[in-house]
Amino acid sequence: MSDFAATNLQPLDGVTVLDLGQVFNGPYCGYLLAMAGARVIKVESPSGEMLRKANTVSNEDYPFIAFNGNKEAITLNLKSSKGQSLLRQLVQKVDVLVENFKPGTMQKFGIDGRELTEINPQLIYAAGSGYGQHGPNAHYLAMDVTVQAMSGVVAITGRDGEAPLKSGPALCDALGGVHLYGAITSALFRRERTGRGAIIDVAMQDSVIASLCSAISAYYQLGSNPPRTGNHHQARKVSPYNIYSTRDGFVAIICHRENHWRRLAVAMGRPELSEDQSFSDMHARSGNMDQTDAVVSQWTQLRTTQDVFETCQRAEVPCAPVRTLEDVIHDPHLIDRGMLQNVPIGDDRSMMLFTTPLRFDDVSPPSVTVPKELGEDNVGVYGEFLGLTETQVEDLKASGVL
Amino acid sequence: MSDFAATNLQPLDGVTVLDLGQVFNGPYCGYLLAMAGARVIKVESPSGEMLRKANTVSNEDYPFIAFNGNKEAITLNLKSSKGQSLLRQLVQKVDVLVENFKPGTMQKFGIDGRELTEINPQLIYAAGSGYGQHGPNAHYLAMDVTVQAMSGVVAITGRDGEAPLKSGPALCDALGGVHLYGAITSALFRRERTGRGAIIDVAMQDSVIASLCSAISAYYQLGSNPPRTGNHHQARKVSPYNIYSTRDGFVAIICHRENHWRRLAVAMGRPELSEDQSFSDMHARSGNMDQTDAVVSQWTQLRTTQDVFETCQRAEVPCAPVRTLEDVIHDPHLIDRGMLQNVPIGDDRSMMLFTTPLRFDDVSPPSVTVPKELGEDNVGVYGEFLGLTETQVEDLKASGVL
Repeated sequence: MSDFAATNLQPLDGVTVLDLGQVFNGPYCGYLLAMAGARVIKVESPSGEMLRKANTVSNEDYPFIAFNGNKEAITLNLKSSKGQSLLRQLVQKVDVLVENFKPGTMQKFGIDGRELTEINPQLIYAAGSGYGQHGPNAHYLAMDVTVQAMSGVVAITGRDGEAPLKSGPALCDALGGVHLYGAITSALFRRERTGRGAIIDVAMQDSVIASLCSAISAYYQLGSNPPRTGNHHQARKVSPYNIYSTRDGFVAIICHRENHWRRLAVAMGRPELSEDQSFSDMHARSGNMDQTDAVVSQWTQLRTTQDVFETCQRAEVPCAPVRTLEDVIHDPHLIDRGMLQNVPIGDDRSMMLFTTPLRFDDVSPPSVTVPKELGEDNVGVYGEFLGLTETQVEDLKASGVL
Repeated sequence: MSDFAATNLQPLDGVTVLDLGQVFNGPYCGYLLAMAGARVIKVESPSGEMLRKANTVSNEDYPFIAFNGNKEAITLNLKSSKGQSLLRQLVQKVDVLVENFKPGTMQKFGIDGRELTEINPQLIYAAGSGYGQHGPNAHYLAMDVTVQAMSGVVAITGRDGEAPLKSGPALCDALGGVHLYGAITSALFRRERTGRGAIIDVAMQDSVIASLCSAISAYYQLGSNPPRTGNHHQARKVSPYNIYSTRDGFVAIICHRENHWRRLAVAMGRPELSEDQSFSDMHARSGNMDQTDAVVSQWTQLRTTQDVFETCQRAEVPCAPVRTLEDVIHDPHLIDRGMLQNVPIGDDRSMMLFTTPLRFDDVSPPSVTVPKELGEDNVGVYGEFLGLTETQVEDLKASGVL
């Protein structure tokens, strides 16, 4: 904590959000908003969002639990005209609406960005989607893996001569969700100055393009599609750059500066390598990549991962062990940062849940909590925002509107 | 364009940024700021940032060009005390400073967040890094591939029984950069309300954790490290979910709802499959994944990628071709959205550069431009901000300060 502590407002203190998100993309955006101090109300259909429904075995609930903590939970049937009318009333009381339905869904219900910002010109209406709200492919169905295929992620993952592979992480969902967050906070800033809201369109595919830049570089070098490079640099212009076997696992090593290589050569007990014409500079080494890798492998293979890692750290050579998920979710560093928190989830069990990566010196994010039950805040929220009584809420529920 | 056009301020209109970023993470953040309308001044050492220096062959310049367009360019030697003094003067005139040096670098120069926010309490000081500014591993050297190894990305990419693979895209850099952007815009919003700046800490490793959620789910299901799943769902609970061979390539297909499968079965001319106990629901199919995949493969292998894709589209089954980089960077949809722009880069050549994924209904991002030459705006910026004359700028350059 610094001298700033006097301000200790959460960044989004006072902001209220309706989060109509589903699966990962929209809910991750809503979660980042909640962890930055916004009041986030998750809005689900009367039967609950897909992930809440899909997961009957509790250990499979992880994504739902991880993306929907720290939110209130209400239900609303957007397919009913009464439900649409309730949404029109709710948006008069909030700052932000997040949704990631298939484009056209909200339009069909007469409650899209145009409609709702006419009702509340201060509203920030934020739509996430696979391919965007506009353009020839806007209507394509999208999940993380299909966006990975469409965007080139699959084409550039895996080894030359083998079938293409998806990237393990759901990077399209995550990148889409956080870009949507950035668009919303940008619009909130502008609204402070202009008094007006915004209609936002963020596509998962658009959001992943910047991460392809080394591969696009390789495309321009070759003038054609580059072969997949396995664990090598996408443009094959950096060496050593690989994941090397050790006695008990794997390590990533990258020498992207000449002095990294000189120090690695010394650390490996082979200082003469930096004088050897075959290895003396990046150009030589990347043209001679297999031999360079062989030299490094000969050294790593005889050592443990921890030994290689510590030696490289001392030599100031960028290196990291290939850690397992178990290592990662129990990492003392991530726990020390509060990034991972051991949260009770009921039945005497607990899970390592993640907080927001956005850290401010003068205020900590709220502690991570587990999601509310479906509709748990119906009485509270509809009472507070629309003045409905408990009986009215129950009647709306009985008639399928909530 | 909507009725909002009256507001047509760029979201970050009037915001001035010093971008001390290097490689991808910091510069991507700076680029997003520039494309949201901020005035971004890239600050480089007198010899230029690593990517500007490293790339002597112009087609290899892609990442430098792609992340540093739409910025002004000045030089400043932060290792000299005069350079540090100039930075202290500059931060009095700007709103945001972005840096992604190794933690401790700015501290060593006496110009870290604490120092600079004492000089300008409205300053938003935003530091990106591999593992954060605090915590036991904060000092580890970090590049995208080492963070992929440390964070579990490598452990969960590739096939069971084979060596782990990195993810092709530089997802740690991209996720780190856009989370940093989101933190800055959140702090700008708060500053409008409190008048105070912020000191921000965003780690690439923290930023990638949310994208691991399906794999962490699998970890909790098994109670141990899950095997790598190749192109299958990380938790092996969704089927069909794979990348299938076609006559001329590959397609991704995912049936995450029962009706996707029923419609796919009909589209494949095998409506009886949805009645077959071996395939009738998600539980059956995911327990019987090889056979389910075999059924789908039998169908896809006889058809072209385009045929499978169109058939699935008509049947409303999520599907996508595995597109090459060449397909992606010439995609009419991405071009129609303005996401990719054909930008002249000199010598009668042009490249497809990307804009920001953050789209607002009432205002378009500025057109993409190529980066300025090293120090091109020295006279302009030091003149405007610090009142230096052209001669003074030249003298500072001659003495190694700029």
